Amino acid sequence: MTHTPTAPARVLIYDPTLRDGHHAARHQLDAAQLRAYAAAADAAGVPVVEVGHGNGLGASSLQIGRARLSDDEMLSTVRDALTHSKMAVFMVPGWGTSDDLRNAVARGADVARIGAHCTEADITERHLGELREMGVEAQAVLLMSHMASPAQLAEQCALMAGWGAQAVGIMDSAGHYLPADVTERISAIAAAVGVPVIFHGHNNLGMAVANSVAAVAAGATVIDGCARGFGAGAGNTQLEVVVAVLERLGYATGIGLKALLHAADIAHEKLMPAPPIIDSVSLVSGLAGVFSGFKKPVLQAAEREQVDPVDLFFALGQRGVVAGQEDLIAETALRLKPQAGV
Amino acid sequence: MTHTPTAPARVLIYDPTLRDGHHAARHQLDAAQLRAYAAAADAAGVPVVEVGHGNGLGASSLQIGRARLSDDEMLSTVRDALTHSKMAVFMVPGWGTSDDLRNAVARGADVARIGAHCTEADITERHLGELREMGVEAQAVLLMSHMASPAQLAEQCALMAGWGAQAVGIMDSAGHYLPADVTERISAIAAAVGVPVIFHGHNNLGMAVANSVAAVAAGATVIDGCARGFGAGAGNTQLEVVVAVLERLGYATGIGLKALLHAADIAHEKLMPAPPIIDSVSLVSGLAGVFSGFKKPVLQAAEREQVDPVDLFFALGQRGVVAGQEDLIAETALRLKPQAGV
Repeated sequence: MTHTPTAPARVLIYDPTLRDGHHAARHQLDAAQLRAYAAAADAAGVPVVEVGHGNGLGASSLQIGRARLSDDEMLSTVRDALTHSKMAVFMVPGWGTSDDLRNAVARGADVARIGAHCTEADITERHLGELREMGVEAQAVLLMSHMASPAQLAEQCALMAGWGAQAVGIMDSAGHYLPADVTERISAIAAAVGVPVIFHGHNNLGMAVANSVAAVAAGATVIDGCARGFGAGAGNTQLEVVVAVLERLGYATGIGLKALLHAADIAHEKLMPAPPIIDSVSLVSGLAGVFSGFKKPVLQAAEREQVDPVDLFFALGQRGVVAGQEDLIAETALRLKPQAGV
Repeated sequence: MTHTPTAPARVLIYDPTLRDGHHAARHQLDAAQLRAYAAAADAAGVPVVEVGHGNGLGASSLQIGRARLSDDEMLSTVRDALTHSKMAVFMVPGWGTSDDLRNAVARGADVARIGAHCTEADITERHLGELREMGVEAQAVLLMSHMASPAQLAEQCALMAGWGAQAVGIMDSAGHYLPADVTERISAIAAAVGVPVIFHGHNNLGMAVANSVAAVAAGATVIDGCARGFGAGAGNTQLEVVVAVLERLGYATGIGLKALLHAADIAHEKLMPAPPIIDSVSLVSGLAGVFSGFKKPVLQAAEREQVDPVDLFFALGQRGVVAGQEDLIAETALRLKPQAGV
């Protein structure tokens, strides 16, 4: 990416505050909260506002956590609050279905992102095709991307672009990356695809903003950020900070800083129980490369089996446990437990 | 700095939690709090623990804020709690005097750091000489260092090393740096002096950890960090995070991570009113390059004159206002105020 004085390089800011932030609010945001934040983000010129249950379309359930509002209620509320920003939805096949996507488009979604585990891109093919037929913007992202090599990620992203994704990229779901890791992966992906490249960071190692800057320098042009970092555990890349830093570095986001700070203040004061910080458990989770959503079950299993949660996080990281494998947490805790009488 | 498999590069971690953190507790930490944290940091193998009023020795006053404990009480308490860690004090000439330094050494300080505005190194000469005569380790740091060029900082650091400082470096007092800024400055300083180079970061732009890593890569070997980031505004470099990241990158700190997390948990639960976050004002303050301690008077002046605090921060940054020039805040606010009848 080269800068010229007349046309600064453009970065598209994608704002999942009302979806990823939902994790930190146990999916309990109400219509007034969604409306207040969406209107403020819209006024600041945020290009894309994503909304939904933390795990995406169709994920509201007893097991994962029921959202206060239905997908339909969330989409209608945010649609009404936006005048310029596009509305986006997120879906992981399995939690959501083709019906959920069709319904979201009928409710006014302009963009739909399909997510898959970093080595399972093939589960996105069907839905990417359906989205293109419906005429909405189709994006695709790889979750827990630190578990795959740069070459694997590039290959999976190229497949998704081939199936119609108009932007592809990676999520640092465990908050495990340092900037050099991001540079390597985004460079490989950017060299392999002809569509915009997405980076979505988490702050477990205090590197979310630095990682996002590294991503842009390596060729990413779609950067995710949540107001005040609103998100599970250590939180996401802090939206207003990454926008200010990118603008200072000479990139153009099209977002007004003062209005964005106002939106962040609304998120802080009206949406979040408390702003995210890097506590000891989030730090260890990021170091170990464990999915952020495992924090609670890991702490529970450690307590039950009387093992150190730090040891349990590292053991889970070594086993390469991913979301959906919650049963391995209890089993791993049991293995760590000192044997009686030995 | 080169890495070899047999001898990883060593980074000395310097912990000002009980001094810089004091800013965020209005200098009100009590003896039990100092003791609890100092003992935990000592147990984790933190090499140096700094203690004192937020502004250093002799600074407790009505104008700046009175500390709960006297310098003597703080030093005696921490001295008793440490078994291996060195005890350090900080002093800015003017707030503190030679008598304060002599007294701190008599109370067991092993290290004393003298601070000066980034272009005023000459005020450190006398005290550095006195410290060397007393036989304690003498360090010197430049405050608000973003206001000077790399060449100026290198020149000022070389002067301080020449006057006896056994480690010299820079504080990013306004939290204004991005990693490339740090690389440039630390490289210039490291090339100009023959003593260890210090970097002390703040997190206003979410870059404290990334800046510290950049500093080490550029030749710094003394890195400051506060437990859970405890410090004014957006907080300092988060100690446990920077230690974990440096160790992952192959540097040796000699600190045990589990015990350090325990110390950070104590700081979080027992010392801080709330852990630091990057709020809108801290972000703007860092962008504008304004001293973090100005947050409160800037907000008050903006309120009084009915001007936008964001505009006031940027105007103060443009005027290059530094600590001690509080009267310029009101004057600048007045200038920004729309004239009646115009």
